[in-house]
Amino acid sequence: MKKIPVLLMGCGGVGRHLLQHIVSCRSLHAKMGVHIRVIGVSDSKSLLVPMDVLKEELNDEFLSQVCRIKSNGSPLSTFSALEKGGFRVVGESELRKETEEITQILGKSTGLAVVDCSASMETIEILMKAAESGCCVVLANKKPLTSTLEHYDKLVLHPRRVRHESTVGAGLPVIASMNRIISSGDPVHSILGSLSGTLGYVMSELEDGKPLSQVVRAAKTLGYTEPDPRDDLSGMDVARKALILARLLGKRITMESIEIESLYPEEMGPGLMSVDDFLQNGIVKLDQNIEERVKKASSNGCVLRYACVIEGSSVQVGIREVPKDSPLGRLRGSDNIVEIYSRCYKEQPLVIQGAGAGNDTTAAGVLADIIDLQDLFP
Amino acid sequence: MKKIPVLLMGCGGVGRHLLQHIVSCRSLHAKMGVHIRVIGVSDSKSLLVPMDVLKEELNDEFLSQVCRIKSNGSPLSTFSALEKGGFRVVGESELRKETEEITQILGKSTGLAVVDCSASMETIEILMKAAESGCCVVLANKKPLTSTLEHYDKLVLHPRRVRHESTVGAGLPVIASMNRIISSGDPVHSILGSLSGTLGYVMSELEDGKPLSQVVRAAKTLGYTEPDPRDDLSGMDVARKALILARLLGKRITMESIEIESLYPEEMGPGLMSVDDFLQNGIVKLDQNIEERVKKASSNGCVLRYACVIEGSSVQVGIREVPKDSPLGRLRGSDNIVEIYSRCYKEQPLVIQGAGAGNDTTAAGVLADIIDLQDLFP
Repeated sequence: MKKIPVLLMGCGGVGRHLLQHIVSCRSLHAKMGVHIRVIGVSDSKSLLVPMDVLKEELNDEFLSQVCRIKSNGSPLSTFSALEKGGFRVVGESELRKETEEITQILGKSTGLAVVDCSASMETIEILMKAAESGCCVVLANKKPLTSTLEHYDKLVLHPRRVRHESTVGAGLPVIASMNRIISSGDPVHSILGSLSGTLGYVMSELEDGKPLSQVVRAAKTLGYTEPDPRDDLSGMDVARKALILARLLGKRITMESIEIESLYPEEMGPGLMSVDDFLQNGIVKLDQNIEERVKKASSNGCVLRYACVIEGSSVQVGIREVPKDSPLGRLRGSDNIVEIYSRCYKEQPLVIQGAGAGNDTTAAGVLADIIDLQDLFP
Repeated sequence: MKKIPVLLMGCGGVGRHLLQHIVSCRSLHAKMGVHIRVIGVSDSKSLLVPMDVLKEELNDEFLSQVCRIKSNGSPLSTFSALEKGGFRVVGESELRKETEEITQILGKSTGLAVVDCSASMETIEILMKAAESGCCVVLANKKPLTSTLEHYDKLVLHPRRVRHESTVGAGLPVIASMNRIISSGDPVHSILGSLSGTLGYVMSELEDGKPLSQVVRAAKTLGYTEPDPRDDLSGMDVARKALILARLLGKRITMESIEIESLYPEEMGPGLMSVDDFLQNGIVKLDQNIEERVKKASSNGCVLRYACVIEGSSVQVGIREVPKDSPLGRLRGSDNIVEIYSRCYKEQPLVIQGAGAGNDTTAAGVLADIIDLQDLFP
């Protein structure tokens, strides 16, 4: 039985689902000859590890308890009170140092997959050191990959040891497919994508003539948006995904070089207007302009999509008119879609489409990444 | 530099393109830290190998010469006359024995990827022995995977060492995506696909009201069909792909358990009617029935597609009414499409679409498979 030691950072939504998947896949993975040995889980304040990380693991009963506690919204530090031997709770002050020590020890002995399911800017130092120590790195967190080029290079020092399918399109096999295209020497000419379920929903609702303000309010009520819908409307999340794809293609760029169209003007930004004020009074002022653009597109046989376009050295993220009858134009609801144009997929693109959000799907993508690393473990 | 020794069987269309890709990707692969060491190429009559398969390789100049000779339609035995040392030509009588010996020696020492780009039924014995000796196996050839279950089990003895992306949808990342879904424990409920570029083209042309006979004749003229179009119209090729997908899902079935709808009746089969007679006099008799089915589908808001449907233990291949507005219904021309329904992709499927034929694309899929094996080599 091949053993893959895993240290999980971030056990909120995605991380918690990952632990559930790991536990429920035990017999499936045993049949495949693989065992995922969870040797640590952490949130922003605590790290839980077995007494001996080299020999022991956090057992399934313990992991299920972690899931229950996190699904109640409680922190891992809750375990301090439950401690009865068998595991240690490392507090905030020692968290980073201890995590780094574990990655050093295991990276050089049994191997280790450090899995980042957080949404934190703060994990990058740990991840870079882990990569340097020979650990594998699996990311659902986009932020470490969208930092400076210096950070990026350190993180992907050993490209085969870095997986991050779930940073773009959740579990959709976008990165895996691009890696195949790249390694076969098929040059990618351009990529066109709709990479935000929220903005996909918003843009396809606009098509039916509804005003932007009404669509965004409804999306918020349905739970499709972030608590502050401007986090979606700013396009920053899409820009991060676009940067990850562009860097995978070898483009040496940073967030600053991406042209990002925000759906709201600066004066309605989070620093200047409350969420409520924006939704009550701000966004209605944007209705007319968008309505006119929708109509103009329609008169050209087109629809509006919030798209990412990567072509040559240019990466653009914003509203785009696309033919009604193109894969992107036909997209409805919150599905993600990626069209890849290359030598092999020249006139008609390679299209990958499906649910691009959700904790279950995102965690499934992370788990597939971990299992796909198995040949790197002894 | 990691070295992947490769023995290629079949250097017609796909195999020849693979050799071209390998040569033209040298600097790309060097940057990735990988070198593909071609230690043998064979067609049905000859095997070319370096003098010492353990230490030497067929160099790029030699491989380019192989490509030139094969693109002229000449056999590898042409090399007998060119022989000036540096390589050996193994003739038909010794071909299988010698190939098996090489797989034994390399499988147990440097490792070896045996790549089957032929369309032969005859490679299966070599492949099974290679798998047993610890070799990796990469297939564009569907036939070894669609033989008996006993053969199948021997072939996929070590699943991580067997890759066959290009057996379904050419280079489209269908198998890779399914393997990810499977390993993440996401249960696949059903698969709906259009897996024949030829039949995809035929069915979408019928939609415009053209008679079947006219569409098939035009497809033959355009080079979209096999020399005998009945090889496409029989549905056997689609059935093979369906069987490969079903077996990947763990279904213990054979070709006999697949319901296959042929587009022509038995009395128009190759044994009873010549190709010319079929195209001149046979196929017109099928026009009316198909036209009526197209009209009936249209009155239901549907179109006809030649689809493969895998659901539960049932695998069906044949004409199916699908909603005009579904991914399969919107398909035009010769693209392939696969819709996968699972727990994660429940209401809306995961859709993979794009060119599903062509030597360039198929060979690119094989090359991506080879590169993806790199972690299994020392």
